[in-house]
Amino acid sequence: MSLPFAQRLQNVETSAIRELFKLLGKPGIISFAGGFPDAALFDVEGVRAATEAALTADAAGALQYGATEGYQPLREEIARFMGSKGAQVNASELIVTTGSQQALDLIGKTMISPGDTVLVEGPTFLATIQCFRLYGANLVTIPVDGDGVDVEAMARLIDEHKPKFVYLIPTFGNPSGATLSLARRQRVLELAVATQTLVVEDDPYGDLYFGEAPPPSLWALSAQVAGSREFLVHCGSLSKILSPGLRVGWLVAPPALLANAVMCKQFSDAATSTFAQATAAQYLQAGGLPGALAKVRPVYAQRARTMVEALGRDCGDAVSFVAPGGGLFVWARLTAPNADAAAFAKRAIEQGVAFVPGAPFFAQNPDRASFRLSFATVAQDKIREGVAKLAQAL
Amino acid sequence: MSLPFAQRLQNVETSAIRELFKLLGKPGIISFAGGFPDAALFDVEGVRAATEAALTADAAGALQYGATEGYQPLREEIARFMGSKGAQVNASELIVTTGSQQALDLIGKTMISPGDTVLVEGPTFLATIQCFRLYGANLVTIPVDGDGVDVEAMARLIDEHKPKFVYLIPTFGNPSGATLSLARRQRVLELAVATQTLVVEDDPYGDLYFGEAPPPSLWALSAQVAGSREFLVHCGSLSKILSPGLRVGWLVAPPALLANAVMCKQFSDAATSTFAQATAAQYLQAGGLPGALAKVRPVYAQRARTMVEALGRDCGDAVSFVAPGGGLFVWARLTAPNADAAAFAKRAIEQGVAFVPGAPFFAQNPDRASFRLSFATVAQDKIREGVAKLAQAL
Repeated sequence: MSLPFAQRLQNVETSAIRELFKLLGKPGIISFAGGFPDAALFDVEGVRAATEAALTADAAGALQYGATEGYQPLREEIARFMGSKGAQVNASELIVTTGSQQALDLIGKTMISPGDTVLVEGPTFLATIQCFRLYGANLVTIPVDGDGVDVEAMARLIDEHKPKFVYLIPTFGNPSGATLSLARRQRVLELAVATQTLVVEDDPYGDLYFGEAPPPSLWALSAQVAGSREFLVHCGSLSKILSPGLRVGWLVAPPALLANAVMCKQFSDAATSTFAQATAAQYLQAGGLPGALAKVRPVYAQRARTMVEALGRDCGDAVSFVAPGGGLFVWARLTAPNADAAAFAKRAIEQGVAFVPGAPFFAQNPDRASFRLSFATVAQDKIREGVAKLAQAL
Repeated sequence: MSLPFAQRLQNVETSAIRELFKLLGKPGIISFAGGFPDAALFDVEGVRAATEAALTADAAGALQYGATEGYQPLREEIARFMGSKGAQVNASELIVTTGSQQALDLIGKTMISPGDTVLVEGPTFLATIQCFRLYGANLVTIPVDGDGVDVEAMARLIDEHKPKFVYLIPTFGNPSGATLSLARRQRVLELAVATQTLVVEDDPYGDLYFGEAPPPSLWALSAQVAGSREFLVHCGSLSKILSPGLRVGWLVAPPALLANAVMCKQFSDAATSTFAQATAAQYLQAGGLPGALAKVRPVYAQRARTMVEALGRDCGDAVSFVAPGGGLFVWARLTAPNADAAAFAKRAIEQGVAFVPGAPFFAQNPDRASFRLSFATVAQDKIREGVAKLAQAL
């Protein structure tokens, strides 16, 4: 007999996800499919020392239940970290979440009633699409180009749909790789105020820049746009810059939204692991993060450059792509008419290289010629070898 | 301007929760209000050694993203732990959750459509009530006595309401302190099969027994009731027996439910902290848990005995209660006609002792004379002093 599952499960296309997962992690192939940072770059000794310090300084705090809002020393360290990037925030204006994935879940739980419209970028983060759909969201996509989301299209869609909120990954977008220009950032904040529309900024990759730092985050810029913080939510994470395994993210939001998110979090997981939070707090307090970032940035930059050069050389005009200024991804598309990246992915697997087709990243109107390549965990020679195999599969 | 929050938030009575929280954690008073284990009893050195071992044995596994189902060595250790209590389970039949609170959240997300009826004990765990209501559940309560839930009432209510599932805390219930008798456990499993009704067993306290071990868990007994595992879910946790700060719980469920819970968890928090999971796995593998339990059981047993004796001596016939066989709580009620435990709680605070009134633990028909006392974190002399103050407040 089958169990009577909740209706909300019917909103999620699990088949697309299952198909994607079949392409991940097969042994012996070169994988551009993941979205993970490189574990070989983790500061294991720094984390070890931080845990030791946490258990010495405050064992009871690290092992007992903690406040749902987060471990206070960590909230303060996160506020300091954001402040160091020009994004002024008080510890009381943010809560710690179990990865930024939970920040997205709490935004969904707090804001979305079944049938509500939410605007997202096309393409956007796959797990955001499914997360919001589980709460019954009707997702409408805003086009993206090399400078990030098309803000005039965003204005029209806000006007047309009166969405509950707009979700953006403005910096080194996943999967688009695109970064929203400074002028467009300004316009997004002005639009939020003018239309009284909540904007959610998801910013897990902003610190992983290769050359120049990207434009200030929407949260940083919001200090200059009167009234915009009433309509701005910011999600951050230590996952891509320190360790995903700690599951430490955060949510900055207007007070009423934050209070509701805390209430929902109480019944979602009571609190984020205080053990992981106390470790993260000690790590940040010890000042290890700038050094860790200085170590990983050039590695990812070199891998990105290697991939971009190899794509240009080996695939020629058959593949177009955006050279990323940071993050973990190259977003590409097959230029041939009616090209199908899913079929290309299957041929590539046969050649021994994996990546994910782009269609599932679109909540609407999938671009079936698009695909995502991650260079983050692959050594340079393997990147060259993998791209050569891609060219063979073309 | 106020933000357009989701309708589901209106299902939660946050005022009752806020009132409760006002009673918790005031400095300088004796608090019987909490639901926490005693941090002074945590095996800090054991956790320290386990973390060290985790970072030495598998740093990449401990710090990288992990499978949504859980860190495989921990799933195996949990299966072994359950097996040691006669509850045979394969690692593949369980997933790790971010505390058992997340197991409840995933059950709600997976099973409850708005308007669905769920049967719960009256009284039951406050955070379960709110968690399920956020998914739109219509909660109907089954009466509880000293032997746990009234199974004949449960049979009638299943017949009447055709609930999505029945949620029970069969062993050392929170807040009831009651333990379901062996005969009733058998009947619950038979009812599940006969009526094809899913039963959720929440078992965070079962290992905290004072004298004899409690009857086997529903999961352990289900091996003897043909077909019952198709309708049985079991939630476990390390929070009360090792450390709540790790946020390691687990969910055992039929395959289709488990698969949907994994899908939902992917979009809730991607995975439970692998750092905490790898630490917990090393701790269990090192065999530390039996010793830790042998240390905490007599302490809680003595505190429970002290409280029960003091209540009998100081409060006499004015207060009735169930002497618990384990767990963290004494569930009591004022015997005077029309007595109001909320007013009593306010008078008690003035005397310098805190506890929580029982009404919010009832999803329906609150017993306003009831209240919950936790002895877990209070030293014996303070328990005696606190109960004497309660008697003064009567």
